[in-house]
Amino acid sequence: MPDRVRIIGSYLSPYVRKVLVCLHLKGVPYEIDPIVPFMGGDRFSTLSPLRRVPVLVDDGVTLADSTVICQYLEDRHPQPAVYPRDVADRARARWLEEFADTRMGDVFIWRLFNQLVIRRFVWGEETDRALVARTLAEDVPQVLGYLEAAAPAEGFLFRDLSIADIAIACFLRNAAFARFTIDAMRWPRTAALVDRTLATAPFERLRPFEDEMMRTPLARHREALAALGAPLTADTVGTATPRRGIMEV
Amino acid sequence: MPDRVRIIGSYLSPYVRKVLVCLHLKGVPYEIDPIVPFMGGDRFSTLSPLRRVPVLVDDGVTLADSTVICQYLEDRHPQPAVYPRDVADRARARWLEEFADTRMGDVFIWRLFNQLVIRRFVWGEETDRALVARTLAEDVPQVLGYLEAAAPAEGFLFRDLSIADIAIACFLRNAAFARFTIDAMRWPRTAALVDRTLATAPFERLRPFEDEMMRTPLARHREALAALGAPLTADTVGTATPRRGIMEV
Repeated sequence: MPDRVRIIGSYLSPYVRKVLVCLHLKGVPYEIDPIVPFMGGDRFSTLSPLRRVPVLVDDGVTLADSTVICQYLEDRHPQPAVYPRDVADRARARWLEEFADTRMGDVFIWRLFNQLVIRRFVWGEETDRALVARTLAEDVPQVLGYLEAAAPAEGFLFRDLSIADIAIACFLRNAAFARFTIDAMRWPRTAALVDRTLATAPFERLRPFEDEMMRTPLARHREALAALGAPLTADTVGTATPRRGIMEV
Repeated sequence: MPDRVRIIGSYLSPYVRKVLVCLHLKGVPYEIDPIVPFMGGDRFSTLSPLRRVPVLVDDGVTLADSTVICQYLEDRHPQPAVYPRDVADRARARWLEEFADTRMGDVFIWRLFNQLVIRRFVWGEETDRALVARTLAEDVPQVLGYLEAAAPAEGFLFRDLSIADIAIACFLRNAAFARFTIDAMRWPRTAALVDRTLATAPFERLRPFEDEMMRTPLARHREALAALGAPLTADTVGTATPRRGIMEV
């Protein structure tokens, strides 16, 4: 059994962040090959048939979906738990994780972060301002309204920090990279829940790496992360030039 | 606690089928409101914010994602298990379920079944023949090649029938509705695995309802299912006319 699990995927991906937060919470040592999914070569396609990040490689197990990886980490390292113990709460937490990964992914990543960050810095393309405006006016309030009805007045969604809080906060961290923050007058519980979650130690530990990557050109990410002491792998499945793949279908 | 769980969703949905197969395997009694997701009213939107089927309602728990529902059923009714016991196998089974739900959903449902069945019978629109031809020539071989490398020479993927076999077979059942069958000369293990899975009792129990719905106009589905003795709910969250929603984004 290897000392450390290997994670492939960028610190800027909300799905990678979800897995890294679970690793930190559980105290599982890891190393990271911080590629963006567009910059993966043929070895990456073999490990991740949908060309998604994160990928986890641990002791002969290769998994290429963040939800499957987090559940695997829970099964392999049960304490501290990131899924609620009560069966109904556990199911609700998984539903909120799915809502975040699907709907918040669509709204905050593919419409906002993609338009305002990825298109410009990976592809050199213009932002679709009308799409961004429509997303902010229609989709974002719908998502935050749904979360506001579920969010607690204090603490976390299911008492202790769980996969539900983590998944939701991961997307708001990316939204912040695109200069979006929740209007705390309109959605006070959600704003406070996300603030509490982002202030926990695992999120705080990842923050310097994320901030560094946001201000560093893609080609110098590895070098900049090495200078900050990130636990980088010796080799990479990344490439120097971006390519389109299944992930974007 | 109610006698029966309630399922909302059509027998023709592969995601609904996955849940129904788990219910039959575990011997959990259920009733069904067999709407297609396009035919859901406001009550449906409240229960299923992404306007997806299936929805499960059980003892105050409402869940609107097939993967979350199957895991909930496993937690609530552990025997017989549909997830492998070994931690690595369980993770691999979950990954194959995700591969099926995402990639096979995209290829077999959104490109083939949608083009050849849903567009015509729900929306009255023409099939995009070029898209179907490209899907059959490129995407289907890629998916079946991936499965062929994972499929066993005999038996099921992880010894006993599991969520991985079930999820994969569910999509091939819909492919059959669109008159697609696997070329057993080219992908013999996958073809045999799917045949074995579809021949198990839970799939056989559902077959008459599915066949009846394929030959019955949408407006008469409930009536036709009642005549066959399907365990229908007394009321419905369905509507008489289709409407577009988030599911299709």
